[in-house]
Amino acid sequence: MKIALAQLNFIVNHFEYNRSKMLNAIEQAKRSGVELIVFSELSVCGYPPYDLLEREEFIVKCQDSIHEIARNCLGITAIVGSPSLNSNPKGKMLFNSAFVLKDGTISSVHNKTLLPTYDVFDEYRYFEPNNEFNTITVNGKRIAVTICEDLWDDQPVSTSFARSRLYRVSPMEMLSKFNPDLIINLAASPFSYNNEERRNKVFTENVHRFGLPVIYVNQVGANAELIFDGGSMVLNREGQILEQLKSFEEDFRVIDTESLDTSVLSNSAKQSEDIRIAKIYDAAILGIRDYFQKMGFSKATLGLSGGIDSAVTLAMAVDALGSHNLRVILMPSKYSSQHSVDDAVALAERLNVKYDLINIQGIFDGFSKGLSNLFMGMKEDITEENLQARIRGNLLMALSNKFGHLLLNTSNKSEAAVGYGTLYGDMNGALSVLGDIYKTDVYKLAHYINREHEIIPTNTIVKPPSAELRPDQKDSDSLPEYEILDNILFRYIEEQKTSDIIISEGFDGATVLKTIRLVNTNEYKRFQAPPILRVSSKAFGFGRRMPLVAHW
Amino acid sequence: MKIALAQLNFIVNHFEYNRSKMLNAIEQAKRSGVELIVFSELSVCGYPPYDLLEREEFIVKCQDSIHEIARNCLGITAIVGSPSLNSNPKGKMLFNSAFVLKDGTISSVHNKTLLPTYDVFDEYRYFEPNNEFNTITVNGKRIAVTICEDLWDDQPVSTSFARSRLYRVSPMEMLSKFNPDLIINLAASPFSYNNEERRNKVFTENVHRFGLPVIYVNQVGANAELIFDGGSMVLNREGQILEQLKSFEEDFRVIDTESLDTSVLSNSAKQSEDIRIAKIYDAAILGIRDYFQKMGFSKATLGLSGGIDSAVTLAMAVDALGSHNLRVILMPSKYSSQHSVDDAVALAERLNVKYDLINIQGIFDGFSKGLSNLFMGMKEDITEENLQARIRGNLLMALSNKFGHLLLNTSNKSEAAVGYGTLYGDMNGALSVLGDIYKTDVYKLAHYINREHEIIPTNTIVKPPSAELRPDQKDSDSLPEYEILDNILFRYIEEQKTSDIIISEGFDGATVLKTIRLVNTNEYKRFQAPPILRVSSKAFGFGRRMPLVAHW
Repeated sequence: MKIALAQLNFIVNHFEYNRSKMLNAIEQAKRSGVELIVFSELSVCGYPPYDLLEREEFIVKCQDSIHEIARNCLGITAIVGSPSLNSNPKGKMLFNSAFVLKDGTISSVHNKTLLPTYDVFDEYRYFEPNNEFNTITVNGKRIAVTICEDLWDDQPVSTSFARSRLYRVSPMEMLSKFNPDLIINLAASPFSYNNEERRNKVFTENVHRFGLPVIYVNQVGANAELIFDGGSMVLNREGQILEQLKSFEEDFRVIDTESLDTSVLSNSAKQSEDIRIAKIYDAAILGIRDYFQKMGFSKATLGLSGGIDSAVTLAMAVDALGSHNLRVILMPSKYSSQHSVDDAVALAERLNVKYDLINIQGIFDGFSKGLSNLFMGMKEDITEENLQARIRGNLLMALSNKFGHLLLNTSNKSEAAVGYGTLYGDMNGALSVLGDIYKTDVYKLAHYINREHEIIPTNTIVKPPSAELRPDQKDSDSLPEYEILDNILFRYIEEQKTSDIIISEGFDGATVLKTIRLVNTNEYKRFQAPPILRVSSKAFGFGRRMPLVAHW
Repeated sequence: MKIALAQLNFIVNHFEYNRSKMLNAIEQAKRSGVELIVFSELSVCGYPPYDLLEREEFIVKCQDSIHEIARNCLGITAIVGSPSLNSNPKGKMLFNSAFVLKDGTISSVHNKTLLPTYDVFDEYRYFEPNNEFNTITVNGKRIAVTICEDLWDDQPVSTSFARSRLYRVSPMEMLSKFNPDLIINLAASPFSYNNEERRNKVFTENVHRFGLPVIYVNQVGANAELIFDGGSMVLNREGQILEQLKSFEEDFRVIDTESLDTSVLSNSAKQSEDIRIAKIYDAAILGIRDYFQKMGFSKATLGLSGGIDSAVTLAMAVDALGSHNLRVILMPSKYSSQHSVDDAVALAERLNVKYDLINIQGIFDGFSKGLSNLFMGMKEDITEENLQARIRGNLLMALSNKFGHLLLNTSNKSEAAVGYGTLYGDMNGALSVLGDIYKTDVYKLAHYINREHEIIPTNTIVKPPSAELRPDQKDSDSLPEYEILDNILFRYIEEQKTSDIIISEGFDGATVLKTIRLVNTNEYKRFQAPPILRVSSKAFGFGRRMPLVAHW
């Protein structure tokens, strides 16, 4: 039997667009003699629809779309994802379902059992867990239809204080009683550079546990913070990857179930650091591109300082949107060094990006004059540093308002973690490109960008990082060296280790406690930060919900 | 038997503070001859702890606190709320539990069955639902211990597309098999002005269904957006309220179980509009006060425009924090009317609040000069309007940074809904006071504030609302009249009605569609808004999770 994997990029709430993509894939599959085509989780409406699931008109549109797709399933079976109504009057109103469509109608509906409700996932907010199990048969093959988390009943733990069995039920244990020939998994699984091994392990362990091949179809494309990487897979009965679809782009692949019994050479190549950085880069490019395309924008701006963060953001934005869609502003103050301006100009010219230079000193003096009565006799302090950042923020928003360029935020995760940034200043932006990327990884991205020839000026990479908001300022005046800081932050945020454990791993106690305190007490700044492209297992924003008002 | 209801205001993660409050209450109860004292849900750690529940050190502190409180329970039984570890290796790691403490130790643990996972509640993110049921016996009385949502298995629907039975289990149906004498409910139930009747109905319906009196102990106090109103209650076997503790402040009440068999005159007074506004006022005052106290701040600032929103916010801030803690800035531009400045000055003087006046024209001209090359030959548009708002935002943040006054945001819910506000301008602030209060209710609050004598100048109340960002601007140039707008918004946001239904209720079709479109397409602005004091059943922010990137 020929099975098609349709790895597509959907837009949430755009039923016509999503449906038309799916119908095209069905036609393509028919032409290839495919008997079964599989789409990703909630493909009809796009994932994640969030609270649109609470709106009647949205559910009606899902149902209409399912029926229209079903009418086009003649001579082919399709498995598509959509919410469905729970007919039991008790429990949540919806299920997260896989619809099996054939002969022009809905043949059966299979509901998701394990509802991830952690990190960025809120599925129990909307869905009732399934408790009825059955398989389907297509062309004589018995298939266990599962949805994403359904295969994650026993997952490798991701943090120091976590458990592997988050659910009381194992859907595949229930489904294996029907002696299926293979497992199909419809997914919407977002990318995390430090989660890929866990994901692969889950699939191979399911194969080994149940002795069944797996066909995994993942969504691709970014929706605000979440970047779905695709990378759909076919695993044989030995847990080897027979086929892997492209990462970070749409793909369509037809396989034959005969091939599920073949073997391949081992392909468990350990991920290298270079590959990790390249994937982060590709993820962020997709994140930028989809944010703009799906929001209906094409042009972007940012403030180019001569520092590493804005340089890397600009290079990535140019790759994602094209240099003709970028326009940047250089906004030196009296504390800006000439080399910073030179580096910024050099980068803009190399990337062929239009730039303007506005010296902010005159505006700053205007504010000083306006505030002179209030601040009479007082020394300059962080107020004046923030004011410079906010003037720059205003200028960028003025350009954004006048010409329709969305402002890209250039803050990195290390800064966001410890509150090293100005609210309503350099924290402005429609989208944060680097907000889930630690400073040490930003440097690695710079080297990656320069891998063939120098794009980002060497001087930008080698000079000590500085906000240039007061004379001779260096980041290291206020913060530990980034190599140390980032290592502490990763242990605290991604790995959720306690301060005691981090200190026991060889970090200076005072530095660890100070860093953790900064993370905790700067929740108020991050509360108002732009959406951050998520590339790790624990990004700031929706997936990390810490109390704003608490004792620290 | 004497039972004490301890309605206290806790700080999340402040174990010493919370424990000391609880131990004081236990001592007070002992002195009153109390046999059983009841605290609110998760009282040991404060509610809501959010993702602190995922941290090992937090759970260890909860356990330590429980043991220390237990050691003080000699000659008295206490029921306290705390997370507890799930000993079953399958399922979430924690339960949301009620610990029964007596004879210096933990006598039993009762876990929450129904885990609200909707609106602002994320309980299944952290907790496993209970599936074991038993009662406790104190002084011969058999008691069913329940936690908040456990009594909400059959709840009045709050929106047009909702169901009343969100759960498959009814904890009280299970517990009633043990023939209890009364129900105790530990709660952390936040205030919503349009949800109080639902809450009361849930209690009386439980009384009627199971023929049992209810003792309900709710948390009081605000934690960022969420305002817990207290109002703990004792209901007799007929569903009448025998005792009700104070709203919006701490309270402690001792009742005798003998009294549970008495009757009272009907007390189901229908809530009047005046009472509704007074409650919103009290809720917001508590919200402001607790935000500042719990964050360790005392001083606030805001921009006083002469308009209704900043006037109401200031009057409330003075009530919450004291006039000596307020300092405001008047920031007229060339579009500001003299009467606006006069009204603002009059209000500041009446409230005895220190004010400064900074004309922003000079700063605006500085920006215009800086941007003159970029904007050459272009007309003034919304860019220049936003720039004025952002200059004001910067000045307020400069005062905030220099003197340590937290900025209060003065935007109302109508504006937030339709995006009538400037990001990084008038949308700035540490806390939004009116962000969940529609403009028409802001006017009612102004009348409430003026109920004894004029505080807010009449002119501020009667003049047509205007942002004064261009000549002769009126809100009604861009928006429907607020009376209509707010009615459409309430139906769309709080009641989650479809556009078709709203139109069928007599609103102009084009106005409804335009309004809904504005709500949907301004999600990006609200994404970066300050925390908003929640007073309704559906506030912007954490409890309303709409996709940022979607098709509208």
